[in-house]
Parts: sequence; C-alpha cells; structure tokens
Amino acid sequence: METRHIPLLLLTHGVNIRYLTGFTGEAGVVLLGPRQGILWVDPRYTLEAHEQAEGVEVIEERKGVLKAAARWLRKNNEVRECAFEASNLTCAQFEQLGREAGNRVRLEPAGDLVEELRVVKDRGEIEAIRRAGKLTAEVLAEVLPHVRPGVLEQDLAAETEYRMRKKGAEGAAFQTIVASGPRSALPHARPSSKALQESELVIIDLGAILSGYAADMTRTFFLGEPSYRVRKLYSAVLKAQEEAVRTVQEGTPAGEIDAAARRILAKHGVARFFLHSTGHGVGLEIHERPRLGKGETTCLRAGSVITVEPGIYLEGVGGIRIEDTVLVGPKDPEILTPASKQSWVIS
Amino acid sequence: METRHIPLLLLTHGVNIRYLTGFTGEAGVVLLGPRQGILWVDPRYTLEAHEQAEGVEVIEERKGVLKAAARWLRKNNEVRECAFEASNLTCAQFEQLGREAGNRVRLEPAGDLVEELRVVKDRGEIEAIRRAGKLTAEVLAEVLPHVRPGVLEQDLAAETEYRMRKKGAEGAAFQTIVASGPRSALPHARPSSKALQESELVIIDLGAILSGYAADMTRTFFLGEPSYRVRKLYSAVLKAQEEAVRTVQEGTPAGEIDAAARRILAKHGVARFFLHSTGHGVGLEIHERPRLGKGETTCLRAGSVITVEPGIYLEGVGGIRIEDTVLVGPKDPEILTPASKQSWVIS
Repeated sequence: METRHIPLLLLTHGVNIRYLTGFTGEAGVVLLGPRQGILWVDPRYTLEAHEQAEGVEVIEERKGVLKAAARWLRKNNEVRECAFEASNLTCAQFEQLGREAGNRVRLEPAGDLVEELRVVKDRGEIEAIRRAGKLTAEVLAEVLPHVRPGVLEQDLAAETEYRMRKKGAEGAAFQTIVASGPRSALPHARPSSKALQESELVIIDLGAILSGYAADMTRTFFLGEPSYRVRKLYSAVLKAQEEAVRTVQEGTPAGEIDAAARRILAKHGVARFFLHSTGHGVGLEIHERPRLGKGETTCLRAGSVITVEPGIYLEGVGGIRIEDTVLVGPKDPEILTPASKQSWVIS
Repeated sequence: METRHIPLLLLTHGVNIRYLTGFTGEAGVVLLGPRQGILWVDPRYTLEAHEQAEGVEVIEERKGVLKAAARWLRKNNEVRECAFEASNLTCAQFEQLGREAGNRVRLEPAGDLVEELRVVKDRGEIEAIRRAGKLTAEVLAEVLPHVRPGVLEQDLAAETEYRMRKKGAEGAAFQTIVASGPRSALPHARPSSKALQESELVIIDLGAILSGYAADMTRTFFLGEPSYRVRKLYSAVLKAQEEAVRTVQEGTPAGEIDAAARRILAKHGVARFFLHSTGHGVGLEIHERPRLGKGETTCLRAGSVITVEPGIYLEGVGGIRIEDTVLVGPKDPEILTPASKQSWVIS
C-alpha cells in the first residue's frame, strides 16, 4: 500500500478478507490503514470474527457493514482518500459508499492488490492444496468402481461429493461434473439423470476444499472397447496435457503453457475442438490468477498453483479433458493431483 | 422497460439471465431491446445456449462477453443510452464497458428491474419450490436416525447433501449447517469435525435445489432430556415462528412479520438473543427479495415465497432456530417445508 501511495484500503471481497485477517464469515468489510485495521461484521458472525480475525479490531454492526465503513470515513476528518476493490464492489455499492462517506473522501479504484499477493502461495497454503489434491485423487479412486454402465451421472456426482466430505473436506470446490456420451462435449455440463452407457466417454471433473483451499482435477474414461479414433483422440489430449505440464516453470509466460498444449493438439489435427484456455490459478478460489490463456504474457512464479487442462469437444460424439493441479517450481513442476491418466479404459 | 423509458438493458447477473431466457450457463451477457435480444456466451456454453435460450439470438464470443456487448453498443450508431444492472456489475466491469462502448453511449443504472419481476413467482416456479421443499423435508426425515451422540457434524452434513442428490436435487442450495452444543450459538456455523454429544442442542439448516429453485428449512433438536430452561427457550422460538407464519399474508408489510416474531420473543424475555432478521425471499437464489427485517415497509405479495426463521443464540449455551419456506397467499400462507416442529427431543 505504501509503494502504491494508498493511505486506506477498503476490502469487500470475502476471500481477500479471509486471506489477510483469517475471518471466514460471509458478510464483512475491512478497512486497512497503515497502523490500524477494522473488520465490521453483522451479528451473525461476531463470535467467529472474534475467534478468527487477527490484526484487526472487530466491530459488530447491525445496519449494514458497508454503511458502517462509509460512516467511519465520514467521521474521521483527516481522511481524504480511500482505495477500494474495483473488481469486488458493485456500482450500486460504490454509489452507496460515496453517498454515505461524503464529498471530502475521494474513492479510488485500487486494482487487484490482494489478488496479486495471493498469486504466490506460502508453505502452509501449498500444503493445504497438496492435501486437497491428494484427497481429490483418493476420492476418484474410490468412486471408480461405480463408473459403470447404468449408473446415473447425478448419482456418481453425489457419491463423489459425499466421499469428499466423509474424508474431511469442507466440501466440493465446485459442482462436480459427470458428463457422459454426447453430454461430455459440453465443457461445463451439470450432472444429469442420464445413465452412463457402454461405448461412451465419461468426463469427471472434481475438486475438494481443505482448510479453505481448493484442488481441481479431471479424468476422462471410456466404457468398453474404444475405437481406433477415440484412442487417437485420447492420446492427443494426454500428450498435450503432459507437454503443457512439462512447460510449467518459474519465468515461463503463462501463454506459453497454453501454446504448448495447442501445438500438440494441432499436430494431431484437433486444435479447433479445444474451446477454452489451458488453465487457471487455484487457491482460496477455484478460479484465480494467473490465467493460462492464449497470448498471456504474465510470467509464472514459483509458488503459484495452477491447473493444466486441455480438452477437446466434438459435438454429437463427446469430449475428452485431462486436468491436474500443478505447483510451479523454480525447476520441475509438481503434480498435486496424483491419479493415473493411463487407466482410462473401463472394460 | 417501456414505462421506465429504458431503450436497452444490459443483463450481467446469471440468475436474471436464466429467469428471462432460460440459459443456465455461468458465463453470459444479455442485451435486451424492444424488438431484439442478444445473448453472448463463451464457447464452453455455446451448445447449452442454443438448446436452452429462448427469445434471444445466441452469439459465441471467445474474447470476453462483456467486451462483445460493449462493441455492439459502439457499432450501432443509433444507440445513445443503455441501462445496466448496478447491483450486478462491478466498478471494474463498468469502467471496461464504458471504455469499450465509447462516449456516445450513456450508461444508466437500471435499478433491480429483474429482481422486482422475480418477487412474484408464477405457477411453475411455485411448483418447483414446493417440490424442493418436500424433498428437503424428506431428506431431514431420512437423516434423523443419524442425529445421535457420536456422529460428526460434517458427516451429518455430508449425509444430508448426499441424500438430496440421490433424490434428484441438483444440489444443496447452500452449505448445509449442522451445529451442535455451543457451536449452535453461531447462526452461520460451518459443519465441523465435532461429534454430537448427549445433552446438546443441534441445529440443522438445509435446503435442496430442484429445477433451479431453492427451499430453505431449519430444525433444532435436543439430544437427551432437555432442562426446564431449554424447553422454555424452544417453546418461545416455536411460538414466535408460528405467530410470524400466521402473520404472512398479501398486503402485510414485511417488517410486520419480523415484528410479530420479535414480540413473542420479547414476551419470553429472549428478544435480545435474536441476532438476524426474520427471513428473506427464496427462489432462483437462496437470498432474494423481499427482506423480512425490522421496519421493512414493502408489502408482501401473493405468489412470493419467503422464509420465516426466528432464532436465538446464547453464547456458551447454544442456539435454537426454526425455519420454514412459506408461500404468501391472498389469505392463508402455505408452508412448503412440511416437517414436524414438535418432535425435537431425541432420547
């Protein structure tokens, strides 16, 4: 804040508040200054706030936490300027904040300061994601015997999330995707009441949250004996994923990982079926920085955790996606979702 | 839009887009005009958008859907003004939109137009919530035999959500709360690895999503033989909840429901332990309009669906909350979460 000449910073994004103070409640606002910090919470979260929050004074507020912060700005005559999280404040909230804080206080967009800090994980954060990744892989191993013709997509998803919780996860980091047959050509399909069938591709995309941190992993299976074409397609995606993972290293531009995956897919003539970017950062949020998209010039940093997940989607046929959560290191990357990518044929 | 002189409306809130077009994907932007509508989606959702969306043209966009909408505004020379959802657009998005759309286009906050439409549910929506409420009550009945000393809060929560999914729910409308003993004094506790114990209060707050629509229900139990004091406390909350439900009728100010609950709690000397408002609307979102808080003057409308959920929270002792999802009618309210509130003692 000092180097960017920010005297005061208003935090409105729950995940950023958790990152800086430890408070995990859903409704709170933090004002950070050079010498002080205040966390306003509504009465539902007062006890948690006192237990969890560090480095900030906790104030209970019944009539709107944003309003309380704005009134504090208005009352403190020496305040001339306050920065806010432009990506985490709606226009309506901004309007309210300005109205309640008064004309003396200039509100300035801060950029995504805390998101930038969160890009590099510390040892504790990495350990949490490593544990979440291991648990995620274990859960997949446990549900694998259920990946059989006749099982409903939604039942498989339910089974997956149930086992995450039973193993101590706080929950699923996102709604588990189980998509079979032609539905697997939808990159973000919701599990449906469709039953898995013989000779179908099945995409399972799952991730557990542990100590607040998420993992993210996808495996694709085939029920029965895959045709020559399906084998070639699977092999193309697997090679693309492995090559992209090999490219992951401190200093590499994020777009290079994406390009590596696309190169291999292009070599196999299927690059046009790759409909999304190659990956994204993972941490307290399931999608965070960096983005591994086409042409991204941001360089990877050691301690970042990212997904590498090329996929191809053929309308009417099905989809294949292979994804790992990967820790960026000074040299070799570490795969944090240790599950086989070879045993994809279920016969 | 016509009565409010809004020539064009930009929708950025996924739930509002779903409400108006049927598209359920997570990344889309809609521009609505008097004669036309356009839905921009990223390639991950193109197939779903074509299947689901009605009344709008679907355009696939690889480089940011908001940017695409802004460029459309810039290119169409007759556009002078466009309204946007101020509660569902961040300051950063607003800035981007303005920059890309250019100076000719005046951006105007629209107020929560679609949220206002969503306040009154149609027959199909009510039926969806009724089914979600019934399923939620059935799930509670199924997990009740597990509400016993020794069971972990998190396992009970896992069991609950698993059964929702097995019964065909799309998922839990929110993270199921299972909070026992002193933890039940946290209104929004997350399920922990704590085991339920003899002589403890246990709050279970659960709700399923069906066809996109949520239900919301809370029951409180006591393991063993409650003391005279706990019986009195439970009875106070139950009476407050029942009285508040009786007050629910078309035309009644929302604050009146809240006042009814508070009056009963005050009569029993426990109003100061009631830390939140009495309820909220339920529908495509778990928290929507109206808000049933102190002094709210908005009048209830027939066809609204709301929660009625007074609760008291005694630090160090525990909490008691009783909640139903309730349909507002022209006369009597209908409880949509049919589960007993009498059989709360588990011995």
